Amino acid sequence: MSFPEAVTRVKEQLKVEGFGVLTEIDVKETLKKKLNVDFRNYCILGACNPHFAYQALQAEDKIGLMLPCNLIVQDVLNGNIEVAAIDPVASMQAVDNPTLRETANQVQNKLKKVISRL
Amino acid sequence: MSFPEAVTRVKEQLKVEGFGVLTEIDVKETLKKKLNVDFRNYCILGACNPHFAYQALQAEDKIGLMLPCNLIVQDVLNGNIEVAAIDPVASMQAVDNPTLRETANQVQNKLKKVISRL
Repeated sequence: MSFPEAVTRVKEQLKVEGFGVLTEIDVKETLKKKLNVDFRNYCILGACNPHFAYQALQAEDKIGLMLPCNLIVQDVLNGNIEVAAIDPVASMQAVDNPTLRETANQVQNKLKKVISRL
Repeated sequence: MSFPEAVTRVKEQLKVEGFGVLTEIDVKETLKKKLNVDFRNYCILGACNPHFAYQALQAEDKIGLMLPCNLIVQDVLNGNIEVAAIDPVASMQAVDNPTLRETANQVQNKLKKVISRL
């Protein structure tokens, strides 16, 4: 699978779980443009499930600092492509809010499903 | 100061510290469009200083999960507008990597300067 195909595949699986991709950063292109350095294929996708985002924002007014949920797609050794997702339970654990924790758990489950189906 | 003026002001101060804004999410518009709910003015800016981002990526290959650094601008009570920035030292503390910690410290200082000048 080519790198662009992998990114498309991730987006498709996110959509199945109700996540839209609100942001997309081509790290390789950005570093080339800004610093003129060569970097491997590396893409940061900002995924957002509007229903859960709204729940989180109602529970915690500054939670936008941790939104959207990032996934990364990158070239690794031997021609492989690696996909990883943020763990919202871990990243939001510093916020002591049971309602938020419940939302983060649900989002974590959905992101696990996305990763497991790739 | 109007809400759009506040967002512009934040972007200007980020630029002074070498941060570009790679992503911008209008939460109010997104929630209206996706869920048809009314929300206050709320903007998530994804700020990136390419020099420090490159350092961080070299120190930790999955650090893209925590990039860019988010700032939020939102309407609060009494016609005030609140600006907050992620604390990269706190959000990256789970990663046990001294090089990354040093980079996060430097970014934290720069974001503090941005906030203090608003």
